[in-house]
Amino acid sequence: MKSNILENINNPTDLRQLDEAQLPQLAQELRDFIIGVVAVKEGHLGASLGVVELTIALHYVFDTPNDLLIWDVGHQAYGHKILTGRRENFHTNRQLNGISGFPKRSESIYDAFGVGHSSTSISAALGMAIASNLKGDFEKQHIAVIGDASIASGMAFEGLNHAGVTDANLLVILNDNAIGIDPSVGALKNYLTAVKEGKNPKKNNMIRSLNFDYSGPIDGHDIFAVIKELKRLKEVKGPKFLHIITTKGKGLQQAEDDQVKYHAPGKFDAATGEIHPKSDGNLPPKYQDVFGLTLLDLAKVNEKIIGITPAMPSGSSLKFMMDAFPKRAFDVGIAEQHAVTLSAGMATQGMVVFCNIYSTFLQRAYDQVIHDVALQNLPVIFCLDRAGLVGEDGATHHGVFDLAYLRCIPNIIIYSPLNEIALRNILYTAQLGLNHPIAIRYPRGRGQIVDWQSRQFGTYEKIEIGTANCLQNGMNIAVLSNGTIGNNVTLALAEIDYPENFAHYDFAFVKPLDENMLHFIFNTFNDIITIEDGAIKGGFGTTIVEFAAENKYSSNIVTLGIPDEFIEQGSVDELQQYCKIDVSSLSIMFSNY
Amino acid sequence: MKSNILENINNPTDLRQLDEAQLPQLAQELRDFIIGVVAVKEGHLGASLGVVELTIALHYVFDTPNDLLIWDVGHQAYGHKILTGRRENFHTNRQLNGISGFPKRSESIYDAFGVGHSSTSISAALGMAIASNLKGDFEKQHIAVIGDASIASGMAFEGLNHAGVTDANLLVILNDNAIGIDPSVGALKNYLTAVKEGKNPKKNNMIRSLNFDYSGPIDGHDIFAVIKELKRLKEVKGPKFLHIITTKGKGLQQAEDDQVKYHAPGKFDAATGEIHPKSDGNLPPKYQDVFGLTLLDLAKVNEKIIGITPAMPSGSSLKFMMDAFPKRAFDVGIAEQHAVTLSAGMATQGMVVFCNIYSTFLQRAYDQVIHDVALQNLPVIFCLDRAGLVGEDGATHHGVFDLAYLRCIPNIIIYSPLNEIALRNILYTAQLGLNHPIAIRYPRGRGQIVDWQSRQFGTYEKIEIGTANCLQNGMNIAVLSNGTIGNNVTLALAEIDYPENFAHYDFAFVKPLDENMLHFIFNTFNDIITIEDGAIKGGFGTTIVEFAAENKYSSNIVTLGIPDEFIEQGSVDELQQYCKIDVSSLSIMFSNY
Repeated sequence: MKSNILENINNPTDLRQLDEAQLPQLAQELRDFIIGVVAVKEGHLGASLGVVELTIALHYVFDTPNDLLIWDVGHQAYGHKILTGRRENFHTNRQLNGISGFPKRSESIYDAFGVGHSSTSISAALGMAIASNLKGDFEKQHIAVIGDASIASGMAFEGLNHAGVTDANLLVILNDNAIGIDPSVGALKNYLTAVKEGKNPKKNNMIRSLNFDYSGPIDGHDIFAVIKELKRLKEVKGPKFLHIITTKGKGLQQAEDDQVKYHAPGKFDAATGEIHPKSDGNLPPKYQDVFGLTLLDLAKVNEKIIGITPAMPSGSSLKFMMDAFPKRAFDVGIAEQHAVTLSAGMATQGMVVFCNIYSTFLQRAYDQVIHDVALQNLPVIFCLDRAGLVGEDGATHHGVFDLAYLRCIPNIIIYSPLNEIALRNILYTAQLGLNHPIAIRYPRGRGQIVDWQSRQFGTYEKIEIGTANCLQNGMNIAVLSNGTIGNNVTLALAEIDYPENFAHYDFAFVKPLDENMLHFIFNTFNDIITIEDGAIKGGFGTTIVEFAAENKYSSNIVTLGIPDEFIEQGSVDELQQYCKIDVSSLSIMFSNY
Repeated sequence: MKSNILENINNPTDLRQLDEAQLPQLAQELRDFIIGVVAVKEGHLGASLGVVELTIALHYVFDTPNDLLIWDVGHQAYGHKILTGRRENFHTNRQLNGISGFPKRSESIYDAFGVGHSSTSISAALGMAIASNLKGDFEKQHIAVIGDASIASGMAFEGLNHAGVTDANLLVILNDNAIGIDPSVGALKNYLTAVKEGKNPKKNNMIRSLNFDYSGPIDGHDIFAVIKELKRLKEVKGPKFLHIITTKGKGLQQAEDDQVKYHAPGKFDAATGEIHPKSDGNLPPKYQDVFGLTLLDLAKVNEKIIGITPAMPSGSSLKFMMDAFPKRAFDVGIAEQHAVTLSAGMATQGMVVFCNIYSTFLQRAYDQVIHDVALQNLPVIFCLDRAGLVGEDGATHHGVFDLAYLRCIPNIIIYSPLNEIALRNILYTAQLGLNHPIAIRYPRGRGQIVDWQSRQFGTYEKIEIGTANCLQNGMNIAVLSNGTIGNNVTLALAEIDYPENFAHYDFAFVKPLDENMLHFIFNTFNDIITIEDGAIKGGFGTTIVEFAAENKYSSNIVTLGIPDEFIEQGSVDELQQYCKIDVSSLSIMFSNY
């Protein structure tokens, strides 16, 4: 069948001109279009394939953008983007200066609310619905589409709990496919499964208990059924809830069969669905695997080790420990707050808890880090994956605030390893017992030491807490780096004419600082450069500036890092270049000293 | 009846020697003891009176401290403290060097987990229960006592959702009295009320849907019934849930009749229950009332103004607007995350949203501030009450991290008013429209301008964003203060011999900084002192130190504020003295310059 409907849809008004009978063909074309682009350009695949029918139905039934539509998280919004004026630009998805991988208000009037982190949609849509009521607009529709993994997060419950006592014109659509990035977990998931299987009579319904008008479950791939139900719900006032059942990856067999892998499969063959094999045999490891494999190794010896992840067993590589020690490694779902306080509770009983949370998501559990862990000085080991610039996921996901927001907390140790070996050694050191919480932050992506595995099973080395290392001696200028960005410094120094002018220190510990080393440095150098892959306001460089002020040193200090603005998407290299912390910006800067 | 049982109870082992028939008398004595001490020493009254029978029953049935007992929030734990070795010290409750107003691990082996912020108990107890299982201890009991206001918070749901799929030996006791500090709200509360009234058959039960063994509701003041049920539940393995109905303030008629006022009534007559009248006619206003009354005043004119509080209508004084404009002012329950994103949703629709959250509780919504508000640059107006040192509530409640954790966020304006007039003017300014989010932080307690009301209804003045003010010219040393602590500077300067040495600047804006003023200051003064009532690591003083480094100024800078440790309870004056930011410490310091 020749594609001829989709190419004429430039906005939902065009869509709404179609006969309902044409919509299945449009669904097929939209699915093919998504597969075709993502196969080449990469991105999130399975979620959007699962909601193709829902996406068309929503824009067909509702008067977008006047009616307000919010996609929770937003991985599933590719179809929405393509139908709302971004078909031609869709190939720039997640690229520098391209369109965002998530709905974004500044990108389109059809993106009612910017998303990225989960479980915000109900609160945001409810706020809009209440506002409409206050403005006297009782016809406007406010729709939150949320997955079964996201609705199990506490914030979503808070939204439902409030919405249920309002007369807000809110429609919550539960897109129930029993999977987030990894399979959904928790008691609510089991409950929803029972509902799907007809084991819970409709009158015994949790959602009804929260005062929502519940309907469903219906087949989310039956576009006519979905349209019919949406039309009915459009006339129902007050908070209402539609439960639809979908299949993640729908329409691409491999994506249906291996939903975890096809969440974001990388490049693949659009026709066959086969993922293009990556010849990564000789590549350095991903930092997440250094974490996951080292933890597994340590857990074999230290029986007190426990691993916790909020819904990222694959992304964090905690899956290695979960497979080997299923009773000691836990996926608690999208529940960062719970994950941290659960860890604190375990730590009170002498467990050695590795709580792995992406840096950007630890923002969700900030109070728990302060109030439940640091205040009680419990030795929870936080492993913050995806710290620093994360690349294509963009502004919602960069892990750039962690140093600033953690550094003000008493009792906590903060460490950013320079490389894979430092990461494995700090993991080893942490499980020996530190009597303090520690946050270990490391980036997305690969390191630089291909043969780290051969060292892994060699000797672990204990790291002395609060020590910095001199990586290179030099005469005039001291460069102090924190974390893996220090490797850019090393590379940049290798490129310049007079590297002997520069000393380079690895300040992996932001807290506690190596004050002896700092006194030496300030007594030796008049020019000091700090570099980090975190927010320049309040981060590592600021720590050094504070130290200088406290000790009345008057050396010049230049602090490099992430400027005081939200950084959009792009490759990590491009974004480092934007922030002037890439190798070539650094070598130019060093050359000009 | 002469008290003679309680005075012989030095720990729960003593308690467990009693005949069950003696327990009602002990309950009466414990109630009288709490009333007697709190009447004189102040503190939280109603919550502990409501759980006297439960407290006795728990320690009677369970083998504390081997069995682990966690009191959510901890306002209700006075009886627990008195029965667990702290009867003699109970008169030092909430005082400097006295016992904490909340359970605290370092204070007693009977305090299994430190609390203060709500909704942490289920996660912590589950962590302990899982740890026990892993250690092969299947007999140990793990009990979380949580109120109906706290269980509606998202974090509690996350804990329940996880617990329901474990075989952890966890008992969650819902202490349902339909009130937190203010009356409980939300759909779950309505659901629980229906359960209490027998309107929901037991088989249709939300808690059962989450795979808990649900029992109740039972009368929480029938000590024999509670004991019987606890004994039964002790033998039930896996996650179980007991729903008990209690009356907050039970046993003191006035406290039962006015539960909001008697949450923490101040001093009162132990015999009659009458609260001692405070002659506050000529006192300066509480900052919370400056907020509440000013907002009401502004809301009369600006119809787009909306007020939001997560469960603090009384504490924040949003109640004034809630009474006058019930459709435009919302108590969303203990749901800070939801409160912030709800505000963001409203702001997208052009509403002018004042989201009032205590500084310490905004930690609960840190991600939402970054991801939903600041990233989208939505002009939500955050009003952070209880910023700085809060006094008797102690380490869990001081609002000292806000400047550090907010300052790294792009787009946000941060303002700490010097006094009541500055607060009302910034509230006025914010609702005019700033095109940015703003955080306005002000302290607990009273200001200093008695006649602020007469000015309130005079002319509002618009504040220029990012401007600092010179409060006093001087010759040698510049003192830069942020917020109300600046009044300590003024008072200290009035005490010293050579005040003309000191210039004093009010830097109410931490972001954006008044850079012109700073250039002038750094070009004029070699000695600069900064002072704030926030964490010295990363706060206002750090901002000034960063500015100096960026601009290569070499003036000496001394930063005063809260040191890098958790500050315990005490009066605000005592704690300021500890931190050396009270008037007399400052005047001594200034005199020695």
